[in-house]
Amino acid sequence: MLYFASDYQEGAHPRIMQRLLETNLESTEGYGTDAYCTQAKELIRSACSCPQAEVHFFIGGTQANATVISAVLASYQGVISARTGHIAGHEAGAIELGGHKVITCPEQDGKISASQIQDLVTQYEQDGNRDHLVMPGMVYLSQPTEYGTIYSLSELTAISEVCRKSGLFLYVDGARLAYALACPDNDVTLPDLARLTDGFYIGGTKCGLLFGEAFVLTTPGRLPHFFSIIKQHGALLAKGRLLGIQFGELFKDGLYTELGKQAVLYADLIRSALSSKGYVLPISCPTNQIFVTLEDAQLKALEEHVVCSFWEKPDACHTVVRIATSWATTQEQVNSLIDLL
Amino acid sequence: MLYFASDYQEGAHPRIMQRLLETNLESTEGYGTDAYCTQAKELIRSACSCPQAEVHFFIGGTQANATVISAVLASYQGVISARTGHIAGHEAGAIELGGHKVITCPEQDGKISASQIQDLVTQYEQDGNRDHLVMPGMVYLSQPTEYGTIYSLSELTAISEVCRKSGLFLYVDGARLAYALACPDNDVTLPDLARLTDGFYIGGTKCGLLFGEAFVLTTPGRLPHFFSIIKQHGALLAKGRLLGIQFGELFKDGLYTELGKQAVLYADLIRSALSSKGYVLPISCPTNQIFVTLEDAQLKALEEHVVCSFWEKPDACHTVVRIATSWATTQEQVNSLIDLL
Amino acid sequence: MLYFASDYQEGAHPRIMQRLLETNLESTEGYGTDAYCTQAKELIRSACSCPQAEVHFFIGGTQANATVISAVLASYQGVISARTGHIAGHEAGAIELGGHKVITCPEQDGKISASQIQDLVTQYEQDGNRDHLVMPGMVYLSQPTEYGTIYSLSELTAISEVCRKSGLFLYVDGARLAYALACPDNDVTLPDLARLTDGFYIGGTKCGLLFGEAFVLTTPGRLPHFFSIIKQHGALLAKGRLLGIQFGELFKDGLYTELGKQAVLYADLIRSALSSKGYVLPISCPTNQIFVTLEDAQLKALEEHVVCSFWEKPDACHTVVRIATSWATTQEQVNSLIDLL
Amino acid sequence: MLYFASDYQEGAHPRIMQRLLETNLESTEGYGTDAYCTQAKELIRSACSCPQAEVHFFIGGTQANATVISAVLASYQGVISARTGHIAGHEAGAIELGGHKVITCPEQDGKISASQIQDLVTQYEQDGNRDHLVMPGMVYLSQPTEYGTIYSLSELTAISEVCRKSGLFLYVDGARLAYALACPDNDVTLPDLARLTDGFYIGGTKCGLLFGEAFVLTTPGRLPHFFSIIKQHGALLAKGRLLGIQFGELFKDGLYTELGKQAVLYADLIRSALSSKGYVLPISCPTNQIFVTLEDAQLKALEEHVVCSFWEKPDACHTVVRIATSWATTQEQVNSLIDLL
Repeated sequence: MLYFASDYQEGAHPRIMQRLLETNLESTEGYGTDAYCTQAKELIRSACSCPQAEVHFFIGGTQANATVISAVLASYQGVISARTGHIAGHEAGAIELGGHKVITCPEQDGKISASQIQDLVTQYEQDGNRDHLVMPGMVYLSQPTEYGTIYSLSELTAISEVCRKSGLFLYVDGARLAYALACPDNDVTLPDLARLTDGFYIGGTKCGLLFGEAFVLTTPGRLPHFFSIIKQHGALLAKGRLLGIQFGELFKDGLYTELGKQAVLYADLIRSALSSKGYVLPISCPTNQIFVTLEDAQLKALEEHVVCSFWEKPDACHTVVRIATSWATTQEQVNSLIDLL
Repeated sequence: MLYFASDYQEGAHPRIMQRLLETNLESTEGYGTDAYCTQAKELIRSACSCPQAEVHFFIGGTQANATVISAVLASYQGVISARTGHIAGHEAGAIELGGHKVITCPEQDGKISASQIQDLVTQYEQDGNRDHLVMPGMVYLSQPTEYGTIYSLSELTAISEVCRKSGLFLYVDGARLAYALACPDNDVTLPDLARLTDGFYIGGTKCGLLFGEAFVLTTPGRLPHFFSIIKQHGALLAKGRLLGIQFGELFKDGLYTELGKQAVLYADLIRSALSSKGYVLPISCPTNQIFVTLEDAQLKALEEHVVCSFWEKPDACHTVVRIATSWATTQEQVNSLIDLL
Repeated sequence: MLYFASDYQEGAHPRIMQRLLETNLESTEGYGTDAYCTQAKELIRSACSCPQAEVHFFIGGTQANATVISAVLASYQGVISARTGHIAGHEAGAIELGGHKVITCPEQDGKISASQIQDLVTQYEQDGNRDHLVMPGMVYLSQPTEYGTIYSLSELTAISEVCRKSGLFLYVDGARLAYALACPDNDVTLPDLARLTDGFYIGGTKCGLLFGEAFVLTTPGRLPHFFSIIKQHGALLAKGRLLGIQFGELFKDGLYTELGKQAVLYADLIRSALSSKGYVLPISCPTNQIFVTLEDAQLKALEEHVVCSFWEKPDACHTVVRIATSWATTQEQVNSLIDLL
Repeated sequence: MLYFASDYQEGAHPRIMQRLLETNLESTEGYGTDAYCTQAKELIRSACSCPQAEVHFFIGGTQANATVISAVLASYQGVISARTGHIAGHEAGAIELGGHKVITCPEQDGKISASQIQDLVTQYEQDGNRDHLVMPGMVYLSQPTEYGTIYSLSELTAISEVCRKSGLFLYVDGARLAYALACPDNDVTLPDLARLTDGFYIGGTKCGLLFGEAFVLTTPGRLPHFFSIIKQHGALLAKGRLLGIQFGELFKDGLYTELGKQAVLYADLIRSALSSKGYVLPISCPTNQIFVTLEDAQLKALEEHVVCSFWEKPDACHTVVRIATSWATTQEQVNSLIDLL
């Protein structure tokens, strides 16, 4: 059986496991106050060319999103997101549980634009009853998006400008960021993210770690007592060093970059094969996710050999499925998949 | 240097690491729907002699407590706890963030009694303005308590009876449960907990795992849509199998029992040594934690060789410290510590 | 100056003031446990032909909506509403503050349909990841809607059927209900509302009272400890009798019915005048609100003599304004307005 | 029957009713943006000698407390209160519903001291694990307290100093403030409250109005977008002018001062009579509440003629009851009560 269902179906990259094993019996302080966390944070700051940044670790993406958004927003504020944003649909209402509205925008292949954000702000500001409305306080983007597409540097710059002008906190969910950074088409680097956003997280769970997301807060002190906020959200790992050890290894010797590149390379091979064989790719995306429309008979045949993800049913006899490569995908698996198509 | 500061200062028991390594490159479904989770849950149900129980995994204790308490209580209800209960003091207000009052009782060495609970309920019921009060809806105990003491079977039975009579959900925080179960004095087994409580969690983080707590809900279906509630609290691990693999190994071949026994044995050795050398142990507790009163000069000398935890300052020239053994403590470390005392 | 800005710009109907005055120096118990509240509730139950209903009083609409929705929904559930529903836009995020998502539908003149609700439910149920989504738990309608339109009996019956089949709590916001009940076109009575919904509120603030909304819970006991929930939301009036006295008078001798009829009659006169003079009424609605499109020059002229509400600007040189009649509108005012048009 | 159960058992002072009647049919804007509210706020600012203060109206005390506390505190902060504080016990968990812990202190006749507050702050600051604790962010006092006692100017000054030094927001619940201000013993004026606290509310519900509390925020802008926060809490009155009209009258020609004085005078008469007849007054308080210990047989006899409030049962054959005077109490009622004793 070939597994292409998601990028979190295996454990961790062997180098990560090796590091966890080597350090396993050392005694350290808890809650991320150890030397491994300190080092990992320094490596991340350096990779982002943002020496002043605060770095805080989380265990998963929904946890990171819910905690950060709750820390950023005042009670009467909401967060702007694409209708397809992870926080808008797939976090079981975690943002609302924290007391805040997700103000949704129509999206284009998962992306929203600076002008849409500007329009929402203008609409709020010009409404005579604005004190009865939810005030936009923050913008949530995903890079890459839930559809695998990416924001260009010019798009992100425009969004950043609107946010700064309007006092909106710009936050980027980078659950799969490694696969955006690795795209040949991509022109948004980690230092760009640190420069243009107020905060973003570098996803580890889907990019080689057992688990872990590193939230980079670009203005230190912007979220006072954030440690207590993390604790209060049940998001503080007792053995915090597990995150430090993993991220420390991920950002050593270019592992993070390499992992992403390989997954995107394999995804590109699969995309080319699909295109050349005449399959329809309903969303054109350059990262590790591939969306392909199959006739239901084709899908049935494929499913005997391949595990992939159901995405949606555009009509009665077709299905869109998602194929995802990852750091764990092998050349052999890719070849087998292409042979099957 | 000797490390006796806590029971979460190392990684995981070598057998746990070995299992994670062996399974690392397998592909499985996410979110705990894999076979490892299924097996681990079955092992836990079996260890609890509670075949109908639901088992849900969490990553840490505060997360488990906050999610469970929030799922159990109606908005107008609060949870009864000892004033020293973890939820009352050391979770940065996580329970209140979830909307609920922690109704505190004075404690005796960390424990509260059936009659105290009964009194709170009676007081509520007899108050003519009770509709203006917070209704007690749940009881939170820790076994062992934050002071390392344990509830006896007769104490727990009495509490259980009050709870059932009054419709209170009885919940036990078992962050260090292995060390209670392993005490020679203990007469409360896992099946007793399953029989007498409505839910409890078996702590992994402090008892041999990298991380993880297994919540046992003794009446299935009692908390509808609990999976969504876990997700909504940011508590759902994408690679859920990491919890299944770890708990599966912990409950195989008596590892869990053995881990606890060894830690308590070592703690008993240290306690005996302390007593025989005339140290004052302000709290008499039989588990893996030892509380000892030191003169500040003694403490200073000790701290050159041993890392332990500050607990409190009873007066200007004495300090109470906590020494904790764990699954990772070795005979050699114990001997060295005793030599130093 | 003529005031047609809203239906809450005056105090209370003279009969209401009279009753408050007559009873002013009587001593009664607080918090709505007095005889006036008991009588008023009985009158409302009777008007609804729903002898088993619970009636609870609130001070205002947002308060009623937030408290009821929070009492009805489980944490992982959301409430379905038209995009233009009051809870979706004009309550400053009160529903989200209570922890719940407002799941919005596109609307037609303020209304949503049974099939839209059914589609949302089906979509949720058929989603393989539904445990990661917000579950629809409730439907919120306004009668009349925010655009002054009304649901017909057949529309409401169809919605009720979908809700009952799917376990959704059907809730109707009746802030301006008197003006719906009074429409010649209307075929939904109070007993229909009691029969088809799970709860609805009869608005007093906009229909003749100083303030007050009467929430009718059609199945008694459905929301346990609702008194405490009201208190917890800061929604319990110390001198609860003020609500009982007002609603008691409102439901005596047909005052409530009469108030509504007169306001709608006057609105109809204004609508006829507008139509006959060639004005454009962008929304066709039969209740006490009139939406009319004016050239900006016309608006400027009108505003010298009339206060009405800005609604929206459809283009650069036109404005839609809202004219509202109420129980306090007089024939004289209506004549003057018509003369001015 | 004589009614001495509480100070909210009648409607409003006749002058208040008169004003509501006179203004009843005027048309004004909603939500407190009218001229009556503007005038009333100005009168209150003037009475407080605090021209820069913001004044916001609420409908009741629990609503005011919950909204203000939620606006002041960060998520990880709690509010310090006497164990007997209204927010600690009698608001059905409204503060916790808003996400915050009430950090309780033992009290002396309902009062807490500057040194207790200082101790709590010191304890927090010196705790090595303070990031895992709830941070004190605010102090809640009642003037008069729930036991009718009052803080002296020197006590309040000391508390204010601790709060300012430690960055705690000092908030005073003045539900019955008129009866504190009117005490011969009292030396804390409205200008003192405005000078020493960060915010306090002047209670109207228990001091002559139908309903209403005026929150005075002494530093303008300290709680940004407070209007939206009020709306979001369901605490915005559509016909906001009702609050402006009432408070405007209450602060005209010394009505507020006079109301309080008369009620305290009558309470003093009752207290003297009780003392001279040998009754035990367990709490010595100088305001409009009187606590008296009765033998159960005495109580039974009294209850045939007088309605008073149950307070507590100190032993099997005695009961403490509360007798409350108010603006509505008459000399005749007081004489009759004294005759009965």
